[in-house]
Amino acid sequence: MPTLPTDPAPFYQAHVFVCTNRRMDGHPRGCCASKGSEKLRDYMKARAKELGIKGIRVNSAGCLDRCEFGPAVVIYPEGVWYKVNTREEVDEILHRHLIEGGRVENLMLQPTDLPPKK
Amino acid sequence: MPTLPTDPAPFYQAHVFVCTNRRMDGHPRGCCASKGSEKLRDYMKARAKELGIKGIRVNSAGCLDRCEFGPAVVIYPEGVWYKVNTREEVDEILHRHLIEGGRVENLMLQPTDLPPKK
Repeated sequence: MPTLPTDPAPFYQAHVFVCTNRRMDGHPRGCCASKGSEKLRDYMKARAKELGIKGIRVNSAGCLDRCEFGPAVVIYPEGVWYKVNTREEVDEILHRHLIEGGRVENLMLQPTDLPPKK
Repeated sequence: MPTLPTDPAPFYQAHVFVCTNRRMDGHPRGCCASKGSEKLRDYMKARAKELGIKGIRVNSAGCLDRCEFGPAVVIYPEGVWYKVNTREEVDEILHRHLIEGGRVENLMLQPTDLPPKK
């Protein structure tokens, strides 16, 4: 939805949500937790703090419904989605996106990365 | 962080995060789960579906760090925060904010609603 001129200033400059949903083993869609998203979230929180990035919050989230393309991460307010598999990729996103305001294009999810039709 | 002209279109028109963090009983900051946020999240998901609101996703989130003012809910990309205590308040937000694009001003958190200094 669009912002309104009367909305308060953003509470966080960057609000990062890491999907940590866990499904039963063998579920056809898989899940982000089985791909290690909890440890990646912990690492991202710790590294953001070490790097002294201001105005950022890294949170767990329930199922973001892009399981096939996870571990799924979304950064708001800009609404940019990433697939993040390794600590090195977390570092890339912290530096390139969250410090420099750029994008890590090769890790971005695209609008065509859709869940299966219901 | 600002959006860039090359960013993909928003994946969700409205992405709602409901804090469902639970702390030990007696914690001085309290927590959203002890104020019933899990049931409110369930209700919001079900009602959004019943109302047929398109492009919305309602997710649980870990601690959003506005515990004192919760149950805390934030709606992105606009980054508007609400305190939501009852099903009636969920209905108000669904209708006024998520269907009509307005705000439920009396439930909005303000920039002065800050966590205690560390």
